[in-house]
Amino acid sequence: MDEFQFIDSIKPKSYTQHSIEKGIGDDAAVFRSMTYDTVTAVDTFVEDIHFSKKTMKFYHIGYRALAANISDMAAMGAEPKFYLVSITIPPGTSSKELQQMYSGMKEIATDYKMDLIGGDTVSGKQLVVCITIIGFVSRGKARYRSHASVGDIVFVTGTLGDSQAGLHILLDDLEVTGQEQFIKSHLMPTPRVQFAQSLQTLNRVALNDVSDGIASELNEIAKASNVNIVIDDAKVPINPHLEQFTKEQQHEWKYFGGEDFELVGTVPPKDWQSLKENAIKMTLDISEIGLVTDNKMKKGQVFLKKENQTHLLIKQGYIHKVGE
Amino acid sequence: MDEFQFIDSIKPKSYTQHSIEKGIGDDAAVFRSMTYDTVTAVDTFVEDIHFSKKTMKFYHIGYRALAANISDMAAMGAEPKFYLVSITIPPGTSSKELQQMYSGMKEIATDYKMDLIGGDTVSGKQLVVCITIIGFVSRGKARYRSHASVGDIVFVTGTLGDSQAGLHILLDDLEVTGQEQFIKSHLMPTPRVQFAQSLQTLNRVALNDVSDGIASELNEIAKASNVNIVIDDAKVPINPHLEQFTKEQQHEWKYFGGEDFELVGTVPPKDWQSLKENAIKMTLDISEIGLVTDNKMKKGQVFLKKENQTHLLIKQGYIHKVGE
Repeated sequence: MDEFQFIDSIKPKSYTQHSIEKGIGDDAAVFRSMTYDTVTAVDTFVEDIHFSKKTMKFYHIGYRALAANISDMAAMGAEPKFYLVSITIPPGTSSKELQQMYSGMKEIATDYKMDLIGGDTVSGKQLVVCITIIGFVSRGKARYRSHASVGDIVFVTGTLGDSQAGLHILLDDLEVTGQEQFIKSHLMPTPRVQFAQSLQTLNRVALNDVSDGIASELNEIAKASNVNIVIDDAKVPINPHLEQFTKEQQHEWKYFGGEDFELVGTVPPKDWQSLKENAIKMTLDISEIGLVTDNKMKKGQVFLKKENQTHLLIKQGYIHKVGE
Repeated sequence: MDEFQFIDSIKPKSYTQHSIEKGIGDDAAVFRSMTYDTVTAVDTFVEDIHFSKKTMKFYHIGYRALAANISDMAAMGAEPKFYLVSITIPPGTSSKELQQMYSGMKEIATDYKMDLIGGDTVSGKQLVVCITIIGFVSRGKARYRSHASVGDIVFVTGTLGDSQAGLHILLDDLEVTGQEQFIKSHLMPTPRVQFAQSLQTLNRVALNDVSDGIASELNEIAKASNVNIVIDDAKVPINPHLEQFTKEQQHEWKYFGGEDFELVGTVPPKDWQSLKENAIKMTLDISEIGLVTDNKMKKGQVFLKKENQTHLLIKQGYIHKVGE
């Protein structure tokens, strides 16, 4: 199958979004955003760094890569609308496998009424999937990590650490109770777009999605907002089945595991009740886990209360080295 | 240097475009397009496929990759505004080399008042540079390849084959007259944004940029517009110094070489004079090379008149195989 036949095979037959003026089939795509602000991000997934064919089928590679991008839109309070996919294809990859990857993307794209509007296919040594996502948000309503204020309640949706548990179950071929949910969290996570949309009525929300672990996400919020954050370990929500793993694994995965694609953020206390009600309406768990404070410490830090002690919770986790 | 230090080192200190609401530093970038349509494309460049460190410094890799993307904006009649860069970094790459690559991008971005608003750095086996470009075009004024009509004049800017000549000079360490111009065309091509902008007053223009060679570009226009195109070899513009190469090389490079990033298109005859005057004003060469016809052949084809014969000019050139 040549490049043009392949593009034909994955090209949408029609588009959902009326704002598309030109989709795939010219030098670039064209859309019209009218009264919205446009939100865009790019994320790259490299084989054996971000995913492995040992634990993921091509379908899941596609599904999960786009889910991670959609989650970035949720973290901005935006509705995802379009995506562009550039893939670098190593020798030995069949066009059927590639089509399965695009099917995985299409599956989750359809859930969000998103359209594939462009991309690129090139050859290389290693599978690299580079996704550009574009969404719309009401003018001035993008949710920044710099919007936290002293006195805010810190919240998180869902439970944390599930994706890492799922990865370990797959890697080590474990059998644990409730493993289907952990595996699903890892392979087919649910970005919290609908919940982020329900925050549109609020004046101010600081928001991040849990891609790198909440230790990292909360540090980003604390730094960008120049505040301190204190969270309480006893309140950080986990799936009860996570207790089958060691205490060290639980701690590692819930704070540094990441890839849960839940939302973590801060809101003024007066808005907490309505936010909780929004979550309940969509049967989404939401937990108050701490406070934004003006304690006397250097600003931009995160503290974890655990077993009657307060620790500094640093970004830790996996920080990529860039260059040598 | 870790990921965060590196991003700090390449992050713009300020932005040129007022439409940016949020640049680098959150889950996504935000911009406001007001009365314009938004145009976007993605292009990926892989080491030893699209470029080689033998013929290009890191600075040029960056410059040329962004130039190719800017050229896609020109081909749509759009003004480039923002770019996002995702790089996959192989072992052995220094952060200094990477910064040089970003400097090359910044150099050409500054010429067009463009801003870097996002991106990603990941590790991998091979250098992969994935650029997303975003531009604006007046509402309804995007230039599609489907806009050619019978009777149109076919034109091309500049000269063709220069980039391939430059590549061969670098690869084979040749010494030929005028080689600086060929090398510049290869390493630091000039996208024709200003000329494409000058077409805004015209009602209808079909437009492509010469990324894959005009044989391919004209076939795309003929197919998308469902017309036939006849061009005259004697009129296809080349740099006089190209005649130092063999007749076969000249033919190959001007029709199938590509990467010249000139513009090729069609306009109604009544607009040809003003289009020529626009080009002259900006000291850009422009050539009439043929006509859009309603000859009796199957639609969507391109014909080349050369030495009193008419040949079918097929897409040929390099078509990537996708999957196995």
